[in-house]
Amino acid sequence: MKIEFWFDFASSYSYPAAMRIETLAKRESLEISWRPFLLGAIFNRQGWQDSPFNLYPAKGAYMWRDLERLCDELDLAFIRPSQFPRNGLLAARVACLFEDAPWLADFIRAAYTANFADDLDISSSRVIASCLEAVGEDSAGILKAANAPAAKARLREQTEQACQKGVFGAPSFFVGEELFWGNDRLSSALNWAVKNKCQYNR
Amino acid sequence: MKIEFWFDFASSYSYPAAMRIETLAKRESLEISWRPFLLGAIFNRQGWQDSPFNLYPAKGAYMWRDLERLCDELDLAFIRPSQFPRNGLLAARVACLFEDAPWLADFIRAAYTANFADDLDISSSRVIASCLEAVGEDSAGILKAANAPAAKARLREQTEQACQKGVFGAPSFFVGEELFWGNDRLSSALNWAVKNKCQYNR
Repeated sequence: MKIEFWFDFASSYSYPAAMRIETLAKRESLEISWRPFLLGAIFNRQGWQDSPFNLYPAKGAYMWRDLERLCDELDLAFIRPSQFPRNGLLAARVACLFEDAPWLADFIRAAYTANFADDLDISSSRVIASCLEAVGEDSAGILKAANAPAAKARLREQTEQACQKGVFGAPSFFVGEELFWGNDRLSSALNWAVKNKCQYNR
Repeated sequence: MKIEFWFDFASSYSYPAAMRIETLAKRESLEISWRPFLLGAIFNRQGWQDSPFNLYPAKGAYMWRDLERLCDELDLAFIRPSQFPRNGLLAARVACLFEDAPWLADFIRAAYTANFADDLDISSSRVIASCLEAVGEDSAGILKAANAPAAKARLREQTEQACQKGVFGAPSFFVGEELFWGNDRLSSALNWAVKNKCQYNR
């Protein structure tokens, strides 16, 4: 029984979801399919050249305050990134290419922590290299693979798939065909999966 | 100790909030300031001539499914309105002008029920009249007052105030200066009010 977790490394509300989902899913014996994608590409199709949190200042101001309150409640370290949205392309290529690696979840959390708790520029190879090293991996080999055409194509396809499935924001969760959007819906998605286990296991 | 509830009669996620807030607030001995406003006027300033749920179809499709699930969980009657967004101007003028009336909360729930459970056109005087009659009021006198220039001006002012306070969507809640947006934040807003009672009672 799987829950698909669609996320973007630049997405602010994906941060608390990414940090918590594995613990919460394990509690319900659910597996996670980690599905990084490029939210910016989906925003572009909606006619936005920037995050709606930048395009609509009142909404943006609220989001930062809301996220601060949320992280405080969850006891999650948080610093408002000095740049937003940061370019999560490299991190997403790594996560997409190594979707079955045993270190994947730890790497994802390390990259989110870099962006939203340590205010580090995750578009930098150096920062992503240190996230990989922090989880005990060979950063040079992985970054080389992540920058190869196959990895680029893989992430493009996955972003296209997100769009086809009706994903319009991040984080998003799928349980079967059922879509849940937003960090606020993480527990609803998990509950749905538990409630419908028999159905999806057929 | 008060919680301000900013809502629009056309707003889909305002429906479950409007139906529940009084019961939840009473439980915490909190008073409600009912603050109807015109979300469309705020959307216009953001460059939207329609609801974002219509402008962005993937988001709209998701919202209807999400609201259906939500109402199901809350055991709240729900039919997707055959027209969206409906014009809530008349209902908002009534609610704005009679903000201290003892029948206000019942009227608000009757109007939301008309729109989201009975699929009735709340822009119609006849429908609003029957909502007023259902709460035991003289609909003719109230509708006359709601259509007078003073009521129109009052709602315009309140919408302007929403904008000045940073409201960008509905439902929104204020506890002191603290803004909470969305039906999903109703319980956070109530918790915030309870936690900070001493501060706000000074």
